[in-house]
Amino acid sequence: MDAIPLDTHLRSLLPQDGTRDALITSVIPRLLQSIAAVADALRQSHNVIAVGTANTFGDHQLNVDVTAENLIRNAMLDCPSIVTASSEEDPVERRVHPHSSSPSSSPTEQYTLAFDPLDGSSIISANWTVGTIFSLWDGPSALNQPPSTAQTAAILGVLGPRTTAIIALRTPNCSPSSSQEPVQTCFELSLDPATATWHVTRPNLSLAPRSTYFSPANLRVAGEDHAYMSLLTEYIARRYSLRYAGGLVPDIVHMLVQGQGLYVNPVTAQSRAKLRRLYELCPMAMVVECAGGMAVDPVDGSRVLEKEVGHCGEKGGLVCGSATAVEEAVGRLLEKRD
Amino acid sequence: MDAIPLDTHLRSLLPQDGTRDALITSVIPRLLQSIAAVADALRQSHNVIAVGTANTFGDHQLNVDVTAENLIRNAMLDCPSIVTASSEEDPVERRVHPHSSSPSSSPTEQYTLAFDPLDGSSIISANWTVGTIFSLWDGPSALNQPPSTAQTAAILGVLGPRTTAIIALRTPNCSPSSSQEPVQTCFELSLDPATATWHVTRPNLSLAPRSTYFSPANLRVAGEDHAYMSLLTEYIARRYSLRYAGGLVPDIVHMLVQGQGLYVNPVTAQSRAKLRRLYELCPMAMVVECAGGMAVDPVDGSRVLEKEVGHCGEKGGLVCGSATAVEEAVGRLLEKRD
Repeated sequence: MDAIPLDTHLRSLLPQDGTRDALITSVIPRLLQSIAAVADALRQSHNVIAVGTANTFGDHQLNVDVTAENLIRNAMLDCPSIVTASSEEDPVERRVHPHSSSPSSSPTEQYTLAFDPLDGSSIISANWTVGTIFSLWDGPSALNQPPSTAQTAAILGVLGPRTTAIIALRTPNCSPSSSQEPVQTCFELSLDPATATWHVTRPNLSLAPRSTYFSPANLRVAGEDHAYMSLLTEYIARRYSLRYAGGLVPDIVHMLVQGQGLYVNPVTAQSRAKLRRLYELCPMAMVVECAGGMAVDPVDGSRVLEKEVGHCGEKGGLVCGSATAVEEAVGRLLEKRD
Repeated sequence: MDAIPLDTHLRSLLPQDGTRDALITSVIPRLLQSIAAVADALRQSHNVIAVGTANTFGDHQLNVDVTAENLIRNAMLDCPSIVTASSEEDPVERRVHPHSSSPSSSPTEQYTLAFDPLDGSSIISANWTVGTIFSLWDGPSALNQPPSTAQTAAILGVLGPRTTAIIALRTPNCSPSSSQEPVQTCFELSLDPATATWHVTRPNLSLAPRSTYFSPANLRVAGEDHAYMSLLTEYIARRYSLRYAGGLVPDIVHMLVQGQGLYVNPVTAQSRAKLRRLYELCPMAMVVECAGGMAVDPVDGSRVLEKEVGHCGEKGGLVCGSATAVEEAVGRLLEKRD
């Protein structure tokens, strides 16, 4: 069976009433083009690897980060509907098109983009799979909005031996005049490098409630946190399979493709939260929820997408994946700490 | 600083007396070309991904495996010096050029190639980095030879966001007339996709004696094996960093690029050995030793390269990486079992 063209797939999912036309015809395609451009830049980046030490390679990494940031910002310039953007490299919301300020030129669809141009700096030098993370919000800001309704799309660019992407869409608040049901979906695309086109290769990613895989992030914390260590030894006793790349994109994508998984990144008194809510937690939580999974804050078990993002620098922990597995893990983490 | 051309680097390392000319000018370049071809095939393999289930993707994986096997076997046909080959997919030693049997056409340099065309089948569908493994032996067979001297080269193709390769060379038994010192080296190459040429990007990979990273393979065994569980909890208590892709190539390459690491794949009464000695253990042990590390059998602590390979299907466990870390790990695994 042939892979499905992206445009066909998006039109089958999103409202036909014109309220998401720019998202379908401009925003998502341009962002996917930028993922292909980042993949190209990364593949050719050995040209700028200086011979020798880890330090010179460190400089190189910075170059690739900056290149990715620039490629994505250039892509946004072609999208009048992306009115605001901020990135993990430059975590301040700014207008994307400062000169088109007259109300007459304002697009009817307005989105805010929050992105991490190249996630996985600790594993990029070993040539492991890394990723690009996009979070798209309705309106001129992502801040102080309810993430569960205002975040419309999350896109993960997966930069590995192939170039693939995960798209999660959720449009609960589509036009009242539309007869279309609210959308909640998560699917995989693959880039055809010969034609530079994207095709839907897994139209429906879905996480089973239970999981026999686990990804324990920040495992060193288990040395001080009895609850985390107890969880780990329990999973080992149950003969669960360990997978832990140490990159958020590959770790989450593994569970989506496997159809099950549990990612645990705890927060304890000794270990502060490290993941950024706007650039990492909200898009990952959306992807996992749209695949039928759960994403919660390990501190209190609350839903990641329940709490508004107050400022670009906010951080948090994450337990996400197969719903029953998440509930059990968080229950145990909280219970043992009481 | 510019990356070093491969040919220049090889000539600076290997004997100038002609005894390794075919290795430098034909065998290594052709095998590296085949890695580039496998990377290309894998990158374009979404074309054959059928839409839908994990099962159809399973069939797809098989296709990529077969494609990789064929690309590598085609490359060998251009190398008169590779006289014998076997692969993980077809684990029988066969002559590569059956018609050039007259002694007059026998090359002066003769190598046997053992290879795993695409290692990492469990993570390829998630678009994680996978690899190709080559092991080159002096003479017309890899079997019943001392691996520590008869295995001349190991090459790992690293198929990730970039295409890189690790080469380990060891020529202790070069021509007695040569004034050249024995060679033992491990370095990284990167493919320039624009020109299809390889450049040396890390000319000297070296593993420090100690490691604060660990890769626990087959972790489920720790549920039944007290020694393995004790090792794991000890590393967590020491706040070591976990990295475990679950693919042998990315896991070993991570330690080489990081300059430290410990990979543990134990064998217990409940868990049989899984790694193939000819296609996985010997080349990995050589790479690690040539970077100054150690690679031992967890069953008795003996050096992996000490024992001859009796047949293509032999399997074993592996503890490898930073030398002091390996000694400590194996000591603890063996001590607790006594």
